[in-house]
Amino acid sequence: MKLLLDFGNTRMKAACRRNGMLEQLYSGPVSREQLERSLYGLDIEGGMYCTVRDIPDDMAQWLEAHRIVRLEYGIPVPLSMKYRSPQTLGMDRLAAAVGAWAASPGRNLLVIDAGTAITCDFVSADGAYVGGNIAPGVKLRLESLHEHTGRLPLVDAGSGDCPMFGYDTETAIRSGVVNGIRLEIEGIIRKTRESYSSVLVFLTGGDAYFFEMTGKCDIFADADLVMKGLDSILEFNENKTE
Amino acid sequence: MKLLLDFGNTRMKAACRRNGMLEQLYSGPVSREQLERSLYGLDIEGGMYCTVRDIPDDMAQWLEAHRIVRLEYGIPVPLSMKYRSPQTLGMDRLAAAVGAWAASPGRNLLVIDAGTAITCDFVSADGAYVGGNIAPGVKLRLESLHEHTGRLPLVDAGSGDCPMFGYDTETAIRSGVVNGIRLEIEGIIRKTRESYSSVLVFLTGGDAYFFEMTGKCDIFADADLVMKGLDSILEFNENKTE
Repeated sequence: MKLLLDFGNTRMKAACRRNGMLEQLYSGPVSREQLERSLYGLDIEGGMYCTVRDIPDDMAQWLEAHRIVRLEYGIPVPLSMKYRSPQTLGMDRLAAAVGAWAASPGRNLLVIDAGTAITCDFVSADGAYVGGNIAPGVKLRLESLHEHTGRLPLVDAGSGDCPMFGYDTETAIRSGVVNGIRLEIEGIIRKTRESYSSVLVFLTGGDAYFFEMTGKCDIFADADLVMKGLDSILEFNENKTE
Repeated sequence: MKLLLDFGNTRMKAACRRNGMLEQLYSGPVSREQLERSLYGLDIEGGMYCTVRDIPDDMAQWLEAHRIVRLEYGIPVPLSMKYRSPQTLGMDRLAAAVGAWAASPGRNLLVIDAGTAITCDFVSADGAYVGGNIAPGVKLRLESLHEHTGRLPLVDAGSGDCPMFGYDTETAIRSGVVNGIRLEIEGIIRKTRESYSSVLVFLTGGDAYFFEMTGKCDIFADADLVMKGLDSILEFNENKTE
């Protein structure tokens, strides 16, 4: 069975393809022990991972021993590449774009990943990864206000009021960060739809639930976009080799 | 002559009122020596300052010796207060709101200050400070991406391309941060105008030039809004005492 792994800035996720279905196995801190525990009894034969960080030595050795291939520049993917520095493109961004393309090939796609960073990537209907943007996510914004200003507290984004205009310091910061990101994301969707026809939007990442846009057309929340992309890239390369 | 001082997160500004006109005297690092140099030959008789940081001892002593009053909770201002924690309201935010009110009394006002933090504050047409939001500014966002993620460089916001979708790491970050903030600000203006009638927008702060919205109606760029607010508060209190 093929293993799929996504090492993010703060956590890792593991999934496998079994009987044609994607199955979540682990989501938590980067830990070889915890990963092995969650894989207990499974027969792993290769797979693929992507990472935005250096991986601990014991984890790297484990990945090599189990022939889990690292997604990196040079590995064929089912999208053509218009990005001018593909060597430094975050492979999680590329995997999410491929995951969206696997779900909806032949459409203009905007892929928004709201995690430690918020990335927005555009795939054109002819199957090209065009490019995208990177901005700090919820936690980074809250921390930066606290760390780099004289007197602002560290606010919890998840609990408490989030009015249009904050009525005290806490709501001012929560509204500024959470509503600000929401307006940013809505603005990117609107601008993209002004420039390209019938754009499908995919929303993924650990903070996506903050920004769910229920009732909006052609916006799909999908927590497993990176995994689906890794799976698609793996399959693309298996088919090539056969 | 009355002195007006605004101590921000990264710099200080000094101005005075002379013959009814506001005159810029100094803008730069917080430094008593440099301030004194820029005031050489001027006869300072009192004034007002606001600060978002602790002030160095020698500066605090100088301010006291020259009877420059600190704007703080409890000092009467020409706006009523609806904010529920006025004790912790940044006095630069209040001063900017008063500055906008002094320029356009009797109107609904949205005051956007783009500096280390980006604050948006609303003043209603009946003269009430209603509340507002705080989000990280350009530099904080760029730094937080660099400091808290594994592999992103520190990007210069001011020089280089800022396309709709970044085509390499540098443009992805610059576009994500600068265009993101622009969409956020445009969104706040739009939402405010959906909720309140004929809103005037004031844009101030060291980074305001990034987000100038030329050709948009009823948006005024004014670098001296905090100073004008301090001046207005000072005058308000002088008139009360007479």
